[in-house]
Amino acid sequence: MYESILKHVNKHIKLSEKERNYFKSVLVSVQIAKRKKLVQPSTLVKHEYFVVKGCLIGYYLDDNGKKHIIQFAIENWWIGDFDAFYNGVPSKLYIEAIEDAELLAIQYDDLQQLFETVPKFERYFRILVTSGFISLQDRILSSLQNETKVRYLEFCKAYPNIEQRVANYHIANYLGVSAESLSRVRRKLVKNSDFLM
Amino acid sequence: MYESILKHVNKHIKLSEKERNYFKSVLVSVQIAKRKKLVQPSTLVKHEYFVVKGCLIGYYLDDNGKKHIIQFAIENWWIGDFDAFYNGVPSKLYIEAIEDAELLAIQYDDLQQLFETVPKFERYFRILVTSGFISLQDRILSSLQNETKVRYLEFCKAYPNIEQRVANYHIANYLGVSAESLSRVRRKLVKNSDFLM
Repeated sequence: MYESILKHVNKHIKLSEKERNYFKSVLVSVQIAKRKKLVQPSTLVKHEYFVVKGCLIGYYLDDNGKKHIIQFAIENWWIGDFDAFYNGVPSKLYIEAIEDAELLAIQYDDLQQLFETVPKFERYFRILVTSGFISLQDRILSSLQNETKVRYLEFCKAYPNIEQRVANYHIANYLGVSAESLSRVRRKLVKNSDFLM
Repeated sequence: MYESILKHVNKHIKLSEKERNYFKSVLVSVQIAKRKKLVQPSTLVKHEYFVVKGCLIGYYLDDNGKKHIIQFAIENWWIGDFDAFYNGVPSKLYIEAIEDAELLAIQYDDLQQLFETVPKFERYFRILVTSGFISLQDRILSSLQNETKVRYLEFCKAYPNIEQRVANYHIANYLGVSAESLSRVRRKLVKNSDFLM
């Protein structure tokens, strides 16, 4: 259960056995079935989640009830409503499993205690959040370009292998394009050998 | 020159005199005149910048030459092209002073050395980047709402006092609305006493 998260942490910081055990002691195993929600808007959010197995989306419903996917998470990604989690404000997002998923959750107070007890975790989360910041900025820049093809290729780079697992309309929603125009682009790319390296 | 950055750091971590001196030794003072650029696209970016005085914008020019302001920075903000800085890829952004500005720059290698020598800085930058991530996500959510008024009020919350210093068309560009519709919203808000608290 802890293998993938320890491997992920180990990429960035080296833990002693004692530190590793302490870290494991603050993680809670969570199973969630496809289509179930982890987070709903206007609620308080006490946890963030590491994906051991499965796929989740974070999305926002606008005033007209239109759904906007903000984030995908697959194995080795963290997902949560970070504004709600870190700032104690009510959540704005839905977080929903789109495959049966196995997660490890950490509670806000336990995370703060982890930073106190094993300060190396500051580095681990700094590196992760920096990557998250850059991905999010890339997403904004990408949405300013007109070409669906470029945006789709950037998506595939940001979420390697996810395009096989996620419905076309989910990706189209994330990219802010119609499902039809994304299908057209994907068909053209499959014909193009550059994409099949 | 170092007063404001030390005060800012001190909000999040406590430094000894030795650590403070080491930190100061890796900062480089930079003066930049209004309308001059710190960063241009397709260049390598070796520094990120803390604003001691002045105001800067980070923007992106799309394929049609249209400018999109991605970030404002005033006193006590850090600004840079973080993708280029952290990942060593060519920059995509322009960073330009819109007032004469006084900055403190830190070089990539010096920052890595700072993390090694004074690991507390991991915490400082983790907290900053987490706020940056949340602001950026808020910006995406805000752009999904239709009402210019709500988006403008969120902008004022994210960048307190900046609306007095920055041209109307800069804010309109950041919000992705026309300068005329922003002016209308601002005039209405000025009439509304709630906004004048």
